[in-house]
Amino acid sequence: MNAYESLEVHFKKIADLEHIAAMMNWDESAMMPSGGGHARSRAMGTLSVLLHDLSVEPDVQSWIAACEPLELTSWQRANVRLIERGTRRALCLSSDFVREQTEAVMASEQQWRVSRAKNDWQAMLPALKKVVDLTRRESLLRAENTGLSPYDAMLDLYEPGVRSARIDALFAPLKAELPGLVTAIIERQSEAPPLLPLGQDFDVDAQRNLGLKVMGHMGFDFDHGRLDTSHHPFCGGVPEDVRLTTRYDPKDFLTSLFAVIHETGHAMYEQGRPSAWLSQPVSAALSMGTHESQSLLMEMQACRSREFVTFVAPLMRAAFGGADGDPAWSDENVYRHITSVQRGFIRVDADEATYPLHVILRYELERALLEGLLEVEDLPAAWNKKMTDYLGLSTEGNYENGVMQDVHWPAGLIGYFPTYTLGAMMAAQLFAAAKSSIQGLPEQLQGGDFSSLLGWLRTHVHGLGSSVSVDQLLKAATGEVLTPQAFLTHLRTRYLG
Amino acid sequence: MNAYESLEVHFKKIADLEHIAAMMNWDESAMMPSGGGHARSRAMGTLSVLLHDLSVEPDVQSWIAACEPLELTSWQRANVRLIERGTRRALCLSSDFVREQTEAVMASEQQWRVSRAKNDWQAMLPALKKVVDLTRRESLLRAENTGLSPYDAMLDLYEPGVRSARIDALFAPLKAELPGLVTAIIERQSEAPPLLPLGQDFDVDAQRNLGLKVMGHMGFDFDHGRLDTSHHPFCGGVPEDVRLTTRYDPKDFLTSLFAVIHETGHAMYEQGRPSAWLSQPVSAALSMGTHESQSLLMEMQACRSREFVTFVAPLMRAAFGGADGDPAWSDENVYRHITSVQRGFIRVDADEATYPLHVILRYELERALLEGLLEVEDLPAAWNKKMTDYLGLSTEGNYENGVMQDVHWPAGLIGYFPTYTLGAMMAAQLFAAAKSSIQGLPEQLQGGDFSSLLGWLRTHVHGLGSSVSVDQLLKAATGEVLTPQAFLTHLRTRYLG
Repeated sequence: MNAYESLEVHFKKIADLEHIAAMMNWDESAMMPSGGGHARSRAMGTLSVLLHDLSVEPDVQSWIAACEPLELTSWQRANVRLIERGTRRALCLSSDFVREQTEAVMASEQQWRVSRAKNDWQAMLPALKKVVDLTRRESLLRAENTGLSPYDAMLDLYEPGVRSARIDALFAPLKAELPGLVTAIIERQSEAPPLLPLGQDFDVDAQRNLGLKVMGHMGFDFDHGRLDTSHHPFCGGVPEDVRLTTRYDPKDFLTSLFAVIHETGHAMYEQGRPSAWLSQPVSAALSMGTHESQSLLMEMQACRSREFVTFVAPLMRAAFGGADGDPAWSDENVYRHITSVQRGFIRVDADEATYPLHVILRYELERALLEGLLEVEDLPAAWNKKMTDYLGLSTEGNYENGVMQDVHWPAGLIGYFPTYTLGAMMAAQLFAAAKSSIQGLPEQLQGGDFSSLLGWLRTHVHGLGSSVSVDQLLKAATGEVLTPQAFLTHLRTRYLG
Repeated sequence: MNAYESLEVHFKKIADLEHIAAMMNWDESAMMPSGGGHARSRAMGTLSVLLHDLSVEPDVQSWIAACEPLELTSWQRANVRLIERGTRRALCLSSDFVREQTEAVMASEQQWRVSRAKNDWQAMLPALKKVVDLTRRESLLRAENTGLSPYDAMLDLYEPGVRSARIDALFAPLKAELPGLVTAIIERQSEAPPLLPLGQDFDVDAQRNLGLKVMGHMGFDFDHGRLDTSHHPFCGGVPEDVRLTTRYDPKDFLTSLFAVIHETGHAMYEQGRPSAWLSQPVSAALSMGTHESQSLLMEMQACRSREFVTFVAPLMRAAFGGADGDPAWSDENVYRHITSVQRGFIRVDADEATYPLHVILRYELERALLEGLLEVEDLPAAWNKKMTDYLGLSTEGNYENGVMQDVHWPAGLIGYFPTYTLGAMMAAQLFAAAKSSIQGLPEQLQGGDFSSLLGWLRTHVHGLGSSVSVDQLLKAATGEVLTPQAFLTHLRTRYLG
């Protein structure tokens, strides 16, 4: 076995344990009763340490060095590069730190589920402070190792190669244009006749079946994945067995259905990762922004289009027993429901025009948090101030729908939020390119046929794994690197065009 | 840290990984889509090898030896004994063998699910032969190491300390008496007026809710466990998070409900393991026979009693919308349904009088299989012969309901079957003792109150973990070691009394 082959064998073992870790994380969110939490945290701490220790084994370093003179294919070379990056990242942290952090994060996530439901910020505070403190320590260790700022060192974990200076430049046009754009859209929408309500009581089984049907049309492979229920929709598992979740509200099926569509976008990215490389780092999704581009391309670009509504509105009507010809289930009324723009409290429920403002708020706060300019205790007031500035809404005393709405910070994910809006931009840019390269795409979506679109994404995104950079991917697929232009054009066209 | 403390730390790590392995096994049976099977097998192979290697680390041997002169409590001493036994067992097999076996077993279980449904013995044969071959090799390795016969070396894994000579002695009275007893019972039951059918179509949600309600009455702790659906009912997970399953047949709710009751008996044993010792081998369930005694005590002794029927028949009627006063839902008619004795093909659906004959058949065949007196190809014919002899039923060409009905052999579990009937005997012996020591137990069951019974089991069985032997446990709880007498008396009294 040469050094490269040794690396592959070693990382196959790591991939096996990561498979298990991914499934256990899904289980924790979708299945585990709360009393199982303590033992689970300990077990996951042990598994994290095992994984960490495998990554930093001295053999790995020697094998990487010994790969240098070998004749390798470009994918093998990219694989070594990613292994080296992963090892470098792992070496920043000690085993003890990894265990402490894993256990603190799991306890804090479990606390978050309880405290958020009770709007109890004081009960959340100690666990959150502990996690933020650990993330600050992590960011300093990573900063020291990489020469980046603490925030950039964390951001790099989720969006490799992207720095906050670039985020600032990409977000500036949004921060400048969106508040006015949102006002204009809301004004425009208020001039139309009132929306007809779709109903009051949507059977949960019927919602689930509708979601499954739409997933099938989109191209989700049910032999390699499943749909379940959790507190917060997410997509987990492994490419061979993708686990996505949604939640159901009997008064509102649209939120759940579009969560299913969103997570299916993520899931199909996973299912489309290069099959020959699945046990190796080079098969991984490219970045969190790229992942989000795949969910948002499906949710916002393809499935909130007039074309797809023509296809899906009759399915909705049939699912909930609407009368034939009922104007509430007309294409126009359903389209207006799913493109309605409103200033709201909740990021995950936000429409695509206000969503970036939710992200910018979090990005600014989490940077200040990591840079020591803001303390956890002061988060609610800072949140309230920015919500008032950007969206005109006060969250005073409303922790549940304010600072406690997301699991990210309790889960130690700081530096992650900007990737949502990078994803929205990428989605718009990729969808515009797909539309110009796939003849008749709108008609296909109108017929519920996603096969050409999925084929295009397999070729230009999914199947590339991490063998290229995001800029290389976008350049090849769309002709240019990431800009906010396609996204802004999309918003102007859809909502004010 | 002294040697004993080092052992505890090491086995806490092993317990963490076993927690994960248990959850993943549950997931594989209850959740995983079939396309995830290949990657899962590989991942579980890696985890098994990790667990195996941790057990046989040379440090463990030294720590065990260094415990000898230490002052230890009786539980600590028992813990060392169990660690030593586990290590000795693990040392029989190499890491490579463990990986090969784990992967072969998972592939064979996955094949079994497909082939059984199609009654396709030829498609099952290669995977089963591979697993039986591996189990034969395993039994020889274990025999060499322990000085036991190959079959006894396997049996010892499931029922420590029990040898086939003792099984033969315990089973002989059953083999002699049961065929005649079954004939007498069937004759007696045929003289009664015909059973009134309970209905034709039992809503699955209503079945599930009834199962959950009964679990609650029995004392199942829902904060530390959950009920799901699988192909074959089972109880998995960990004491802090017990996962039990059942299956639903819209035409027959009784099978599913009594599977829930059965698995809840197992689950409460797990939930009652000594909490201070949960991360150590001494907390483990004592043996598979003891485990089965807890499920059968609930299912057969407590919940098929006339007293419990008085409580549960009205719940059944309410669950399925039966009319008040409908004679089909009378205590007498429901009792006759759940104590009906019939010669049937399927072990898991068998009543308690015919069940041991199913077990004796398997015990005799699997012994012959391990001793090289029977080949896998010849199993269907041998099965058919014994089914005809013991139960008067031919399984020719009927693999699905014959040799392919159980997952055990495809899963490499050879030496396990006798423990079901040991459990039935223990259940009868323990329940008789509980009844004489708990004042008013029948009245409590009539009121759906299991708390005294559960308390008695916590004290005399669950809370002891593996700190004593089965004979010690039975002697202390019932005054004598295991005999078939209580079981035979129970059958004669319930069915012919």
